[in-house]
Amino acid sequence: MDFSSKLLENAVEEMSQLPGIGKRTALRLVLHLLKQPENQTEKLVSALHNMRSDVKFCKKCFNISDTDICEICANPKREENVVCVVEDIRDVMAIEATSQYKGLYHVLGGKISPIDGIGPGDLQIHSLVERVKSGEVKELIFALSSTMEGDTTNFYIYKQIEGFAVETSTIARGIAVGGELEYADEVTLGRSIVNRIPFEKSLKNS
Amino acid sequence: MDFSSKLLENAVEEMSQLPGIGKRTALRLVLHLLKQPENQTEKLVSALHNMRSDVKFCKKCFNISDTDICEICANPKREENVVCVVEDIRDVMAIEATSQYKGLYHVLGGKISPIDGIGPGDLQIHSLVERVKSGEVKELIFALSSTMEGDTTNFYIYKQIEGFAVETSTIARGIAVGGELEYADEVTLGRSIVNRIPFEKSLKNS
Ligand SMILES: [Zn+2]
Ligand SMILES: [Zn+2]
Repeated sequence: MDFSSKLLENAVEEMSQLPGIGKRTALRLVLHLLKQPENQTEKLVSALHNMRSDVKFCKKCFNISDTDICEICANPKREENVVCVVEDIRDVMAIEATSQYKGLYHVLGGKISPIDGIGPGDLQIHSLVERVKSGEVKELIFALSSTMEGDTTNFYIYKQIEGFAVETSTIARGIAVGGELEYADEVTLGRSIVNRIPFEKSLKNS
Repeated sequence: MDFSSKLLENAVEEMSQLPGIGKRTALRLVLHLLKQPENQTEKLVSALHNMRSDVKFCKKCFNISDTDICEICANPKREENVVCVVEDIRDVMAIEATSQYKGLYHVLGGKISPIDGIGPGDLQIHSLVERVKSGEVKELIFALSSTMEGDTTNFYIYKQIEGFAVETSTIARGIAVGGELEYADEVTLGRSIVNRIPFEKSLKNS
């Protein structure tokens, strides 16, 4: 693309560094900002700057937080012996949105993925093992995505904490509530049959 | 969405003000920035800030420019009597990329669209009429999109400059070069038949 302005070219160039934003989309977004009052760009600019320079990660669970210990970890009403292991903060948000979970979290920051050059040392695994070793965790719930990387990560952590007095569980996979059997993929349907639960228990859940 | 950080929430909120960027996409983009070195966010932030506060619009054609008069208007090799009327800077970039046009431009900044509350006064129409009145323009080429708004805008300008010594033309619409007739829409195909050109002229163009 041949820009008539270096300032515009730079803005498009930086915007197109974002994942999924090509040069054309970046140009569209940047031209939109030019048409809006200057104030809108300044609000975006300072929100991004403030976030990147001031945001913290909770020292206990590594959730994003504005304080040293996040609101969830600091809440005395949460079950502090139950820890749900998730990949990133979006999973925390999704689980919190259900209002069904009262324990704490541990945010790994990703999954073990040799292809992407992500090893255990790049994730918050050591800090999780330390939490378990300290004896504060009674139950660890694995809630990573059920991909090969997720399974590898679960298993790696499982081996690290073997021998410590902690129960481990994994979230149930199966047919979505209200979902039709005929549209489910075979693996999910198969797992939902193998991991069937007593009918009485299903009554309690509804 | 329930964020555990006000700083994060603000960043997502501002990012999702951009057209086509929903809350989920905004969160994905913002979390990406958090994973990258701080320096990447700062480069984006200052590129946007500098563009919005320092970019200029050419005083002659209203193209985006870093100088008072843009490079195209300032280029003595361009045909200064021929002016192509376009909607926005992306059209200038698209036409420049063809290397087929040697005249100047006039960037309206949009199309007349009563539904969106955009009238002639919101666009660079008065300045275009002044250019024509001054006698500097011999040919005006309309290159707006062929929508109702584009046609309305063309016609509005056409009536304003009626009576002045200026030729007007509109870019050719038709089947794309290399395009198959059977896949063309009826309106385009119809127009390309009505506006057929002498065969000899088509030989010169190729
Ligand atoms: Zn926490
Ligand atoms: Zn210009």
